[in-house]
Amino acid sequence: MFVFVLNCGSSSFKYQLLDMSNERRVASGLVERIGMQDAALTYEPVGGEKIREVLHVADHAAAIAHILELLVDAKTGVIGSLKDITAVGHRVVHGAEKFSKSVLVDEKVIAVLQENIPLAPLHNPPNITGIKAMMQDLPGVPNVAVFDTAFHTTMPPESYLYAVPYEWYEKLHVRRYGFHGTSHRFVSERAAQILGIALDRFNCITCHMGNGSSFTAIKNGKSYDTSMGMTPLEGMVMGTRSGDIDPGVLRFLADTSSLSIDDIDVVLNKQSGLLGISGVSSDMRDVEIAAAQGNVRAQLALDVLCHRSLKYIGAYAIELGRVDAIIFTGGIGENGADFRATVVNRLALLGIKLDADANNVRGKEAIISTADSAIKVMVVPTNEELEIARDTRDIVAALPGR
Amino acid sequence: MFVFVLNCGSSSFKYQLLDMSNERRVASGLVERIGMQDAALTYEPVGGEKIREVLHVADHAAAIAHILELLVDAKTGVIGSLKDITAVGHRVVHGAEKFSKSVLVDEKVIAVLQENIPLAPLHNPPNITGIKAMMQDLPGVPNVAVFDTAFHTTMPPESYLYAVPYEWYEKLHVRRYGFHGTSHRFVSERAAQILGIALDRFNCITCHMGNGSSFTAIKNGKSYDTSMGMTPLEGMVMGTRSGDIDPGVLRFLADTSSLSIDDIDVVLNKQSGLLGISGVSSDMRDVEIAAAQGNVRAQLALDVLCHRSLKYIGAYAIELGRVDAIIFTGGIGENGADFRATVVNRLALLGIKLDADANNVRGKEAIISTADSAIKVMVVPTNEELEIARDTRDIVAALPGR
Repeated sequence: MFVFVLNCGSSSFKYQLLDMSNERRVASGLVERIGMQDAALTYEPVGGEKIREVLHVADHAAAIAHILELLVDAKTGVIGSLKDITAVGHRVVHGAEKFSKSVLVDEKVIAVLQENIPLAPLHNPPNITGIKAMMQDLPGVPNVAVFDTAFHTTMPPESYLYAVPYEWYEKLHVRRYGFHGTSHRFVSERAAQILGIALDRFNCITCHMGNGSSFTAIKNGKSYDTSMGMTPLEGMVMGTRSGDIDPGVLRFLADTSSLSIDDIDVVLNKQSGLLGISGVSSDMRDVEIAAAQGNVRAQLALDVLCHRSLKYIGAYAIELGRVDAIIFTGGIGENGADFRATVVNRLALLGIKLDADANNVRGKEAIISTADSAIKVMVVPTNEELEIARDTRDIVAALPGR
Repeated sequence: MFVFVLNCGSSSFKYQLLDMSNERRVASGLVERIGMQDAALTYEPVGGEKIREVLHVADHAAAIAHILELLVDAKTGVIGSLKDITAVGHRVVHGAEKFSKSVLVDEKVIAVLQENIPLAPLHNPPNITGIKAMMQDLPGVPNVAVFDTAFHTTMPPESYLYAVPYEWYEKLHVRRYGFHGTSHRFVSERAAQILGIALDRFNCITCHMGNGSSFTAIKNGKSYDTSMGMTPLEGMVMGTRSGDIDPGVLRFLADTSSLSIDDIDVVLNKQSGLLGISGVSSDMRDVEIAAAQGNVRAQLALDVLCHRSLKYIGAYAIELGRVDAIIFTGGIGENGADFRATVVNRLALLGIKLDADANNVRGKEAIISTADSAIKVMVVPTNEELEIARDTRDIVAALPGR
């Protein structure tokens, strides 16, 4: 069976087709600037030649229809017929408290996603658009929604409650939800497997560091606490997001500058983080190069990122009480060997010892702590698309009549 | 020599007179509702009878003048003449980056305090009022300003920088300043003394928990990081303050509720924290009683407070790399034996062991960890007034001609 995985933004999407007989990707790509005259499309069949096209696509459904044509085209195709696509898996950002795991999409599910729009105004609308487009382009093929928040629904109240009026939680749904759940779940399960520890006894801290970053404390295989909050703004220093900041700063700026609360929100989301401190780039690689060349603000950005990482690892280690592994993943986590070394070398209080040679690895599974380290430190590349495809496969396999 | 210590609010102040020959308090009290017809004044000479008066006082200067009369009154007095008051020490909230230690007040200092008003709009104006009132009531007597922020000026940039545009730091002074510095300094110095460790090699975490709460990581006797930020809103769960919260929540509320940013700020400062979650009280004792009687939200408030405490202790332990002691102080820290036990019993990962008997102490210096605990855990009552009086004494003693 083949599963098509879709991750929709407001004017773009990423997609993959996976062959679930061997869990391998057979094609992937993205479409950007949907609705514009010069939309950009890429299509890359595994083992074949990458195609780039600039064309007009009216909407998501039209773009997807074009991708589906490429998938079955005599020249570029990787499958014989669209009937080979058994199901579609959608990355959906916000499931709120309604969805603790992936679900088959029906009218009720779509209605709940629509209800959740105020919680994820930027993300849930395109996710719904994507689902409707697939329903149009592949009628009769089941759609499965896989939520970024679902893995974190196991958090206890002391982790998810803010110290605000309880009515804000009850009536306005103000609480920590957490995101990147599919990635935290994938790498924690894989790490337990590598270490040969039963998942329901596995305690770990997963450090997902990319353009967006979040750390999660995982207790007995379940999310216990996570650094992103009600929105993806809280927590770690990110490419352009501030992460944690005194909430009093927002009022200070609203009172003393010409910025409105919406302006401030844009700056905190789009012009802060590594970019804001360094003034160089939101990309860790650029910031590292600038720091190495003596750029003081670039070095400060790295220092603040390291400091924030240590805070969360320390906090989560104590919350968990016992930690089997610390796992780095995401673009920076998988490739940032220097950064990992800087962080891990400051964890000696926990009995952790870095194996500098083993840490000299990029984008591959590895144990980067020494054999006598009290806690294993690992690199585990994430694969959210595969996790989405697996959930999709499992849910569709359990449908009546299959 | 006698030092008068003043801690001014906008319509109230607390005061103490200390005999610095033995560092003992000789009188203390407070005045509230200054400017009203029914201002309330208390005056308590040590060893004598506490006086309560309800009267009209026009302003801070008039209230202070009345207190000074009581200090030298034949019946209520504790000193022979106002000439016995050698100096006045003022608690000043915000010294920003300008004051890294206590200073003799002159016109220039007052000008800087005035410049800093945007950073502490609620606190610096009454502090200035108090200084001017003392200059009027005790002409020629030197005034010393002791800053809540001064102890924290040793923080490195990675602790005090938020991941926001660097221009916000340079031009708008957006950074972590930290508060309660006088208390963190006092208890850390006292703890080093008790343990017989040289201050410049003493690493500790000080947990100041009262109606306002902050935790500080102290490295080699100096503040290295602290939980309050640009304002006293960030960090720990407090009586009515939220502490840490996703900054995205402010925009969410501004967009989806009828609350303005100023309304939200008031709720986060005045109706959140223990009060907000429990709905019972901002007072830890009330919340503990309610929780013991089965009030679910009161128990949740305690759970969130414990959780936040563990996060900061874990974060600061890792930041410091080596910790000699964890020190509890402030109303809750000194008296909340049950709460301390709940927190300390979850620090086993750091090799910490609670001595349950020793922990059964309220408001007294004690080591509450076992002899074989890897890190000492202590209760050290704070005494900010004494620390202010000491700084005042030292600065005045060094003046030319003394």
